[in-house]
Parts: sequence; structure tokens; C-alpha cells
Amino acid sequence: MKIAVIGGGSIGLLFAAYLQTRFDVLLYTRTIEQADEINKTGITVHRGVESFKVNVVAKPLMDRFPNINLAIVAVKQYQLESILSQLDGIPNVLFLQNGMGHLKLFEKLSGCNIFVGSVEHGAFREGPAIVSHNGIGATKAAVVKGDGELLNELAAISSTDFQFLIEEDYYMMLASKLSANAVINPLTAILRVPNGELITNPYFEKMLEDLFTEVVDILGFKDKARQLKYVKDICKKTAENRSSMLKDIESGRMTEVDAILGYLLEQAGDMGKGVPLITAFYHMIKGIEWGQGGNT
Amino acid sequence: MKIAVIGGGSIGLLFAAYLQTRFDVLLYTRTIEQADEINKTGITVHRGVESFKVNVVAKPLMDRFPNINLAIVAVKQYQLESILSQLDGIPNVLFLQNGMGHLKLFEKLSGCNIFVGSVEHGAFREGPAIVSHNGIGATKAAVVKGDGELLNELAAISSTDFQFLIEEDYYMMLASKLSANAVINPLTAILRVPNGELITNPYFEKMLEDLFTEVVDILGFKDKARQLKYVKDICKKTAENRSSMLKDIESGRMTEVDAILGYLLEQAGDMGKGVPLITAFYHMIKGIEWGQGGNT
Repeated sequence: MKIAVIGGGSIGLLFAAYLQTRFDVLLYTRTIEQADEINKTGITVHRGVESFKVNVVAKPLMDRFPNINLAIVAVKQYQLESILSQLDGIPNVLFLQNGMGHLKLFEKLSGCNIFVGSVEHGAFREGPAIVSHNGIGATKAAVVKGDGELLNELAAISSTDFQFLIEEDYYMMLASKLSANAVINPLTAILRVPNGELITNPYFEKMLEDLFTEVVDILGFKDKARQLKYVKDICKKTAENRSSMLKDIESGRMTEVDAILGYLLEQAGDMGKGVPLITAFYHMIKGIEWGQGGNT
Repeated sequence: MKIAVIGGGSIGLLFAAYLQTRFDVLLYTRTIEQADEINKTGITVHRGVESFKVNVVAKPLMDRFPNINLAIVAVKQYQLESILSQLDGIPNVLFLQNGMGHLKLFEKLSGCNIFVGSVEHGAFREGPAIVSHNGIGATKAAVVKGDGELLNELAAISSTDFQFLIEEDYYMMLASKLSANAVINPLTAILRVPNGELITNPYFEKMLEDLFTEVVDILGFKDKARQLKYVKDICKKTAENRSSMLKDIESGRMTEVDAILGYLLEQAGDMGKGVPLITAFYHMIKGIEWGQGGNT
């Protein structure tokens, strides 16, 4: 199987390195410099005290894709639209974005089997060709449109350190992850606390529950109590972690707020629902980005 | 006229120093050490490049009040209840607290003429006996209960640098200040920005307007647009300032959130109104205090 991994961030590097051990991988990066570096040194993966190196062929994104069976898209959602036209015609495409805003873009892709994935690995990009695999999880994946044959193939021969698990319901898979992201990311980013404080501080926990109520009301979970437990369990399991949105804010980077809260605001608008807390956190995060010049 | 100023914070020091130049003032402080220091050195007032020193008699708060005509109460609202019983029997009492939560305590004071004031001076306590008068404003004051004769006397002989202005409607006077405090303080404290950013950042300005809408809805202003302009004008005039709540949060001190948002939450509860944003900011500020051990 010939796979193109698109995006040289932490997730792109991780996927390219692991999949290269079983498949024929091409990694597409935004800059020529990063592609050159990877072609020279390979990708180094740090995992606990061990580390290993994999030779991967990298190319800059401006190049056309050759004949490939599967494209794995690991760019941020706000970078997605600019590469969408390049994807049309590839037989199978797996999207790894957070949130659900990208779902509406899929109608522009005719003729591809479309899959979405939810990555539960911890990964941190230490350099242009170095990634730290600091949390071994799995990638959940589900079919959105077309034939899932290739996804089954991927799952069947995935390694234990880099598993693919097939999910039946893509909507609930993404909605479940979004419900956690939509609560944990904005709260930790505004309060500037690690994830665990959202459940150990009784006032923040009340805040989490109020924001969660607005979020699940839009996403339409049947068992809201179970979903709340799922979100709180993530806070517990990742208690020491600083969320990706908090890290983005602290580093003055653009956040994924549009993919996360922006999507929910749109849905709420379509449903005619007032969502004062989602609106407030959206404005606060956008305002911080604006102040940093990240979104002018 | 014999005046007792109660509280040795920035406002207490400022009032004691200015009023001593025209009246007979006793300053009551929480600690014996501060009273000793003031008795030894007097109070030094820094005002721009000048400074002056006034000899004031200071006593610790545990002492009983002698025969005085007026008590000016300049402690934080959350310290008010502990000294309330000492005030009963004083013929005139002027309260300078922020917020409106203290209004309900007045029923415990029988037989006093009760006044409330809204201090528009900028003051900063530089030491136990040193205060910087860094913004020359005025003290607005109004009668809540009883005879306002003494307040008129105070206004009549106040100096231009330390004016008293008599207001007719104590409720609107306090409500107007509270509407500004309830919006500017929590937003700047959570976003950790100076006051001006609430109107120069378009996302924060939207946030300010949404929170303002909940606040004025409780306080019952007739002309909401004019009141919003008043709040935004304060942001403009004090653009470089960090609000008192932001300074409290940054220094790990307890804030006045109960007097400000706590009061509004109570009122909203009585009126049966849902106030999601006031609730959210209340929980966030209380949670930060809790995390700092300021309110356990």
C-alpha cells in the first residue's frame, strides 16, 4: 500500500514514521527545508527512554501527489481548505482533524472513500525531523463515505504501539472527542491551568459542568451523564497535562478555536439555540489571538 | 467635627490625611503596628512630584470609639460584618465600600444617619503610613437613611483636591459604579489585561457588551445605552490601569468578587433571572481564589 501523509507536525511525523515500518510512505511538508532535513536524517521517534530512526521520503506540499492508495491528512483544520483541491481523485482519504467543522468540506471531494480518525496518541514535535511519542494510545477511525475496505486493511496489520481501531459511528466518535475538547481546551486556556484542576477545584468543576451542558445539548448525546463522566475521566487521566489550546495561547500561536467552539456556534445558530458560555469563551480565545496578532 | 476613619488601607489613609487638615480625625487600623507607625511618623501623601505630611492620631480597631460625630468606614466589604456592632450608636456613618451588598447590613444599625460614598480618587498604599494620591477625583456621597445635614457640612468645606459631591439617588449612584465594576473587574482579572484592552480588542468588547447586558438587566437602568457608554468611557480614561481585581488576583489576595458579582447573583436569584455569564465569571474568580488558598 502506498500512503501519503500530509503535514509535518507532531501527528504527521508520528504517522509517517510508524507506517513506514509496514507500508510505502511519502511525507508531505509545508516547507522545503523540513522535507530536505527529513530526507537527510530520517525521522527520529523518542519513546520513553528508547528512540528509533526511520528513513522516510519527504516532499514539499507544492508537489503533486503520485499514484497513492491512501492520503492521511494531518494538518490543522484551518489549513485544510488550501489543500483540499489536491486531494480530489485520491481513492482513499483519512482526515485526522479535531472538531467537526471539516465534515462539511467533504462534499467537495467526489469519488474518494472518506474516513475520519481521532488520534489518542500523545505526540510532541521536538524538531523538523524529531517527534516524541509521549503517550501510546490508538487511532480510532470510521468510514464517512464509500468503501471501508482499505481502513480494515490498515487496522489488520497495525502494530501494538500504533493501533488502528475501527469505529461504527463516525459522528458519535468525533462528537465524543469534540465534547471533551470543547470543554477542556477553552477552560484550561482561559484559566491557564493544567487539565486536572478542572475537576479538583470545585468552582472550576461547576464551570466545566455548565459549559458541558451547552456543548452536549448541541451535539445530541443520549446519555449525557456518561458523556460528562468521559470528559471528567480525561481530566483525571491527563491531570498534569497542559491542553493544546493552552500551549498555543502560551506560545502566541493560533489555536483551533474555530474548529472547536466555532463549529458549535454555527450548529447552535442553525438550531436557533442560545449558547452564552460557548459564545463567551469563543470571544475570549479569539480576543487573545487577536491581541497576539495571530488572527489579524 | 470629630471624625473616625476606619481602615488603614489606601482609602483610609487618604481620607484621614485630607480630612485632618480641616477636622479632628482619629484613624482606626487593624494592627497595633500600623497605628504605632502613624502616631510616630504621621501620614505622608505623595501627589505627583509633591508630597506632604499630616499628623494624625491612630488607634487599633479593637479600641472603643469615643464620642465622634461621623465614622467613615473604609474597610473591604468582606471585613464589614466583623466591625458592624461597633458602629451602632454613632450619629453619622459614611460607608465607602464597592458594590451594593453592604446595603442589606444597614438594617442592623438603628439610630444612625447612614450615608454611602463612591470614591473616584486613585490611591495606592505605599507603606503603613504612606499613600500615593495618584488620581485626583472626588467622593460622591448620598443619604441612605436619616438626616443629611452633616454630609452637607462635609461637602461645604471640602478642599478642591478632596471634594465631596452630594448625590440625590444613592441607589443609582452605587448601581452605576457597580455596573462598571461588575464588567471591568472580572473581565480584566480573567483575561489579565489592562482596562483599555476591553474596548480596543473587538472580541473583548463584544464580551464586555454581553456581560454588561446581564448586569444592567439586574440593576434596572432606564437608559442602558448611556450606561454602556459610561462603562466604556471608564475603560478609555483608565486604559493603562490594571483593575483592582486583576491586581488582587496577581498578588494572590482575596478579591471583592462577592461584593460585586456575588451581590448580582443574589439579586438575579431573587428575580428568578438566569445569568450565565455572571455565574461563569463568579465561578472563575472564586476558583482562582480557591486555588490560591485565599478562600478555603
